[in-house]
This record gives sequence, structure tokens and C-alpha cells, in this order.
Amino acid sequence: MTEIAQLRDTLDGERLWDDIMALSTIGALEPKGIRRLALDDQDNHARLWLAKQGWALGCQVNFDTLGNLFLRREGQDDSLAPLLIGSHMDSQPLAGAHDGALGVLAGLAVLRTLQDQGIEHRRPIEIVSWTNEEGARFAPGASGSSWFAGQRAYEDIVAAVDNEGVRFGEALQACLTLLEDYGLVYRPAPFVPHAFIELHIEQGPVLEQLGKPVGVVSGIQGVNWYRIDVEGVANHAGTTPQNARRDAFDGAHELVSALKAATREQDDDLRFTIGKFAVWPDAVNTIAQRASFSIDLRHPDQQVLDALDDKFHALAERHWSGCEVKLKVTSRVAPVAFPDHLLALLRESAGSVCADAPEFVSGAFHDAIHLAQVCPTAMLFTPCRAGISHHPDEHIERQDAEVAVRALAHAVAQLL
Amino acid sequence: MTEIAQLRDTLDGERLWDDIMALSTIGALEPKGIRRLALDDQDNHARLWLAKQGWALGCQVNFDTLGNLFLRREGQDDSLAPLLIGSHMDSQPLAGAHDGALGVLAGLAVLRTLQDQGIEHRRPIEIVSWTNEEGARFAPGASGSSWFAGQRAYEDIVAAVDNEGVRFGEALQACLTLLEDYGLVYRPAPFVPHAFIELHIEQGPVLEQLGKPVGVVSGIQGVNWYRIDVEGVANHAGTTPQNARRDAFDGAHELVSALKAATREQDDDLRFTIGKFAVWPDAVNTIAQRASFSIDLRHPDQQVLDALDDKFHALAERHWSGCEVKLKVTSRVAPVAFPDHLLALLRESAGSVCADAPEFVSGAFHDAIHLAQVCPTAMLFTPCRAGISHHPDEHIERQDAEVAVRALAHAVAQLL
Repeated sequence: MTEIAQLRDTLDGERLWDDIMALSTIGALEPKGIRRLALDDQDNHARLWLAKQGWALGCQVNFDTLGNLFLRREGQDDSLAPLLIGSHMDSQPLAGAHDGALGVLAGLAVLRTLQDQGIEHRRPIEIVSWTNEEGARFAPGASGSSWFAGQRAYEDIVAAVDNEGVRFGEALQACLTLLEDYGLVYRPAPFVPHAFIELHIEQGPVLEQLGKPVGVVSGIQGVNWYRIDVEGVANHAGTTPQNARRDAFDGAHELVSALKAATREQDDDLRFTIGKFAVWPDAVNTIAQRASFSIDLRHPDQQVLDALDDKFHALAERHWSGCEVKLKVTSRVAPVAFPDHLLALLRESAGSVCADAPEFVSGAFHDAIHLAQVCPTAMLFTPCRAGISHHPDEHIERQDAEVAVRALAHAVAQLL
Repeated sequence: MTEIAQLRDTLDGERLWDDIMALSTIGALEPKGIRRLALDDQDNHARLWLAKQGWALGCQVNFDTLGNLFLRREGQDDSLAPLLIGSHMDSQPLAGAHDGALGVLAGLAVLRTLQDQGIEHRRPIEIVSWTNEEGARFAPGASGSSWFAGQRAYEDIVAAVDNEGVRFGEALQACLTLLEDYGLVYRPAPFVPHAFIELHIEQGPVLEQLGKPVGVVSGIQGVNWYRIDVEGVANHAGTTPQNARRDAFDGAHELVSALKAATREQDDDLRFTIGKFAVWPDAVNTIAQRASFSIDLRHPDQQVLDALDDKFHALAERHWSGCEVKLKVTSRVAPVAFPDHLLALLRESAGSVCADAPEFVSGAFHDAIHLAQVCPTAMLFTPCRAGISHHPDEHIERQDAEVAVRALAHAVAQLL
């Protein structure tokens, strides 16, 4: 059989599943779930685990200035730009075992198969695990890939601070020191890959509803993140008449109502989420002096995002319950459409393992959205149960994952 | 002059102010403000400071099962029930120097004057500092006075847990051990005082607007505290369609709108405050699985409180954004009206130092609301600037405090 078919068909699905189970023990929660916050001990432990797998396959294991990890398998012509495959290993605070991890371990499965089968290839291949895709500990996310793609400045990224007051820069330095001590090769600068392919769980309902194990992602919707601070005056809850208050919670509540009203006029593709909300001093009988919350806003059409961005800024100009508002854009990622030639290749690859594999836009953002700015980039999806992710109930079917990874292997073989 | 006039007129206002300044250094914040959370190191330090002042005046210094502190000056007939004067020394997270402290130090000023002037009195007098009036660290508040008055069970009080997971019972035990080691006398059980008088800052605008240094408090409005938990489903902010969500934040937001609407129909005496609000897992791109908030509801009329309590429970029965709601009443304190004979005495006392001293209901609750259940109880207020309290900007005028404490001394002399 051809090497393409060989790589695809000899890939060991059982060993892929064993890798998924092995990685899922790092940061495992009781009774279930995963917690590997970016650059915490568990996330760093995962890096060391992956490096060991790479060494066992004779790969050179590199890390860069942002702690992105690369397993490099040489090609016959190492002057060629490497094909890049991967995703991320960090997680949300209460997450499942497959978000991100599957894409990295799919790449590892391809490496294992290339090695087993002794398949020669002209072009080098590198498996990558990007730093802080989730943005749960340090906002915004996709730090490693956005820096690698020149989309975000190093200084801005390392200045982020987590809820415990730890700076991204401190946590990153500790990680780099650990990797250096462990014997990984420091390769500071980004490079231009031949192409980047990311396999990821869909985190939505489409594939499961269609009963398809794999889908081609035609693009990714854009994302704006905001942080809103409402400044009021703390005072006694019992003695201050309602009309004499400048209650930061009331102000935030009114503003949220107005923001929601502004988004309701939009189409069904819009995603509007307030995931963080806090008040100070946070006491039952003290009127809030400050309220602070986040907005996660997504849409496939940049014009829709821009129009809402204008509305949000206009609303923040006004006073709410007598309170001033500060609105800060903490992240802006434009929608992308993946290039036709890669989409054609992925259609053929998916088609070789699954009849009528669907094609649709990703609702979640991924590291691929940044890589698309520097090299031909595309993605494959595999279904997760009920579209649930960022939750311990996240679940994928072993057979689905195996089919999806074979589609990836098919594409990889052609690109090598 | 009579001993009544003697006690009132020889009271040393400068030394009172020195005591206020001395206590304000314990838990002082930079650049300004006070933080003495119930039973924390600063609050315990304040107890030891007060005990030292008592010993210097030849008082017996006692503490009870709840860590309430008592400075006892014997009378000619110690079989008589003691007159009780005082307030509390714990504070909100970001507070001023006078909320509670003034009432305790006013009692201390009376003790100092009785001692200086060698005034004999038939009845014993005790200055008290009640444990955890604020309820900022351990909710609900007024733990010491409500237990002393038999209004709340010891088991319920010690079961409260602070934001760091510390149980009230643990913190209390550490405090009691400290007081015992320091040499204070453990007097476990409550007793029935002859009467309880509490001087406190108004924490409202009335006296300042009238330009009066002292006012008579005719009663205290009732207070209900609630904790509301909204249970949703965590999911991915980018992929989950708005109509497929069970977003705990959205549910809480809708419920808050309904709760506010229910209170808007009420008169101006109503106080409705949401001072605590939190979401989990509190990540920008994860739909909230749970939202939790507090309500502080106050009104002088029990029937109004009961009617709103019914409405709140009815609203909590419904689903909000598809989320279930749990509503828990964490505290219920009925309104009280102070007895006529004490009010008459306080009118005369205030009148002896201030023409046309006003009389009105307290918007804040105080330890006096519980003492009123076991002995004749009443209160005096002195103004604070702009009615601000529970905030570092809390401020009182030295002359106002002096006048108010003289009014207290006048009443004390008659009751002794």
C-alpha cells in the first residue's frame, strides 16, 4: 500500500487511547476532571511527560521563549520548513481530558507510527504544545501561539497577573528553568512552518447530531474579550437611603442589562458570555464600592463584532446608578477563513475515513487562529458528547477519536 | 454640684479622644482606615488593649463563652444587677475608627471619670465589647449579643465559616485561650443586666443635616439576610448557542432584576442591598456553573419584611435562565421599639447637653436590638460626616462625640 495509506491505516488507536489516559492522570481531580492551569505544576509536569515521549522516539525536544514545546522528527531534507501539528495541554479550572490534549497526542500518535513503520519523509515534522491557550489563569489566552505568530507582544503577555497576584513572567521563568534543567533544547525564536494542522474536539453539538466522527473546520469566529470595572461608594446597607446610593453592584447590574439588550438584536451566530464577576469589599451589609466583570464576545463576521464593540464603548461612557465605568479590551482576535488548498486536502483526508464528513466554522477559538497569520493553517474536529467541554463531564468516543486521527495522518502523509 | 452633673461635666473629652486614637492604631490600614475582622489577630489585640485599660482602673475583666469582654466596676451593693454600657470593636474589611469603638470607649470614659472623681454608686457597672457585631468575616453578625440574649444558638454561631474556610468555632477557641493566658477571668454564662445603653455613630445623614451632636434612638428597624445560590451548567463560551445554555450568571441576573422590581413597590424606609456576589468557576470563556449572592433587607415594619420575604421565596421557586435557585435565610432580626421610661431618661440626658435633641429609628442594626429582648435597652447616636461608615472616610467631630458621651454619662449616673 502507499505510504499515505500505510501511515493512516497502521496507526495504533489503542496506544493513542493509552496516551490520552496517561496524560489525563496529570492534574486529575477527584472524583473526575482535569485541572492543569497554564504554567502551574501540573501543566509543567505535562511538558516533562511529553518531552520524555519525544526522546523515546528519537526526536529533538525544543522549547521557545514562551515555553511552547516542540517534538522534532528530522526529514530527508532538513532545510525544508517543518510541518507543524499540535494543540495545547493546559486546561480550564474544572475541565475534561481531551480539550487540547487530543491534538497534541494525535501528533504524538503520528510520530509513533512514522517511527514504527520506519516511514521516510522529505520534510521535517514537529509536534507542538502551545502555552496558555485557555487563558483561564492568565487572560487573554493563546499566549504561546499568538506570540509565535507575531500577533501579541512579549511584554504584554508576561505582564498578565493571576488571581493570586502571580505574574505570567514569573511563572514562565520558573517553567523555562525547569525545562532547561530537564535537558530540553532552548530554541528561542519563532519560525515559519510549512503548514499547521490542529485536531481538536468540537466543543459544540454539530458532529454528534450528524453522527460523524470527524469534520473539516473551514474557519474560526472572531473573539473580543473585555474587562469592565464599575466604581461606586461603599456605605452602610442599613442607613443609606436607596436614592442616596452609588452602589457599584446596582451600576453593574444595570449596565449588564443594557449590554444584553444590545446583543439581543443580533443573529444566532452571536456568543455573549459573562464568565467572571466580583464585587468589593464583598460584605453582606456593605454597599459595593467596586464591581468588576468580563465579557467574552464572538461572531464569524468582523463587522458584527466592530458594531457591538462601538455599542459597548458607548454604554461604558454613561453613568450607571451614579457610578463611573471603565471598559478595557483585553483581547481582540479577528475571524479567519482557512485556505482553500488545505481545506481541499482535509476534505479528501476526512473523506478517506468517513463518508460525507461535514464542514463548518469553529465556535471556539484555537491556537490555529493565530498560526493562520503566518502559514497555511487548517483544523479537524472530532465530536464530544452533548458538546460539553470546559467541564469534567467532557467525553469523547474512542472510535471517533481514532477515525479523526487517521484523517489527520492521511493529511500529514501528503504534506510530508 | 450633684453627682449626676459631676460625672457628666468632669468627663475628660481629650482623654476620650486619646483612647479613640489609641484603639484606632490596632488594625490601622495605609493610607487610612481600619480592619479588625471578628476574632482575627487585630480584633483579639483590641481585646487585650481594653483589658489593660480596665485593670488600670481596678476593674475585674471578664470574658464569656462567645468572647464578649466585660470591664466590671463594683458598686456598694454587688447583689444588684449591673448596668451594662458598650458596643463592639470588630469592623468591616475597610472601615473607619468609630463604628462600635466609640460606644465601648464612651463606657471606658465613664469608668475613668467615676474613678478620678471617686464617685460611689450603689449598682455595679460593666462596660462590654460584643463579639462579631459586623458579620463581615462570619455571617450573620451580632454573634456575641444575640447569644448573650438567648436569640441564637451556640451551635449555629460556631458553625459559620469565613472565606478562607476557617470555622467561627476555631477562631473563637483561639481567642478564648489567648484571653485566659492573658489573665482575664472566664465567666461563661450570660446574666440579666439592669439595663443596656449603647452609644453609636448614626451611620446616616439625619443628625448632620439637623446640626445636632446627639440624638435619641427610639428603636431599630428589622433585618433579614439571605444567601441565594443559582445552579447552572458550565460550558464553552464560544460554542454553546445562547438558547442552549443554562448560564448561572444569566439566571442570577434575571432573578436580581425580579427581586429589585419586587422591592421598588415599597416605601422609602426600605433598604435592599446585594453586597456579596460571586460566580464559579469564574473564567472569562466558561459559562458560569454557579452564581451566589447575598441580600440585606431592612424595614421598621415587620409586616413589610414578611410580605417581601414571601415574595422572595416565591421568586426562588421559579427557574431563571433554566437554572434552579436555592434561597436560604441566614439571619432574621425583628424590629424593636425601646421602652418609654428609658427613652424619657435619654431625652432628659440628651436635653441636658443639647437643645432639641432629635429622636428617630435606627437604620442600622446594633447589638442593642438583641439586648432589648432581655433587659430595658436604649441607644444614643452621634453624627458622622455625610452618614458615611463601613468605609475609611468615616469621620466624626471631636466636639460632637464629647457632647454625646456627656449625655450618656448623665443617663448612667441616674441609672447607678
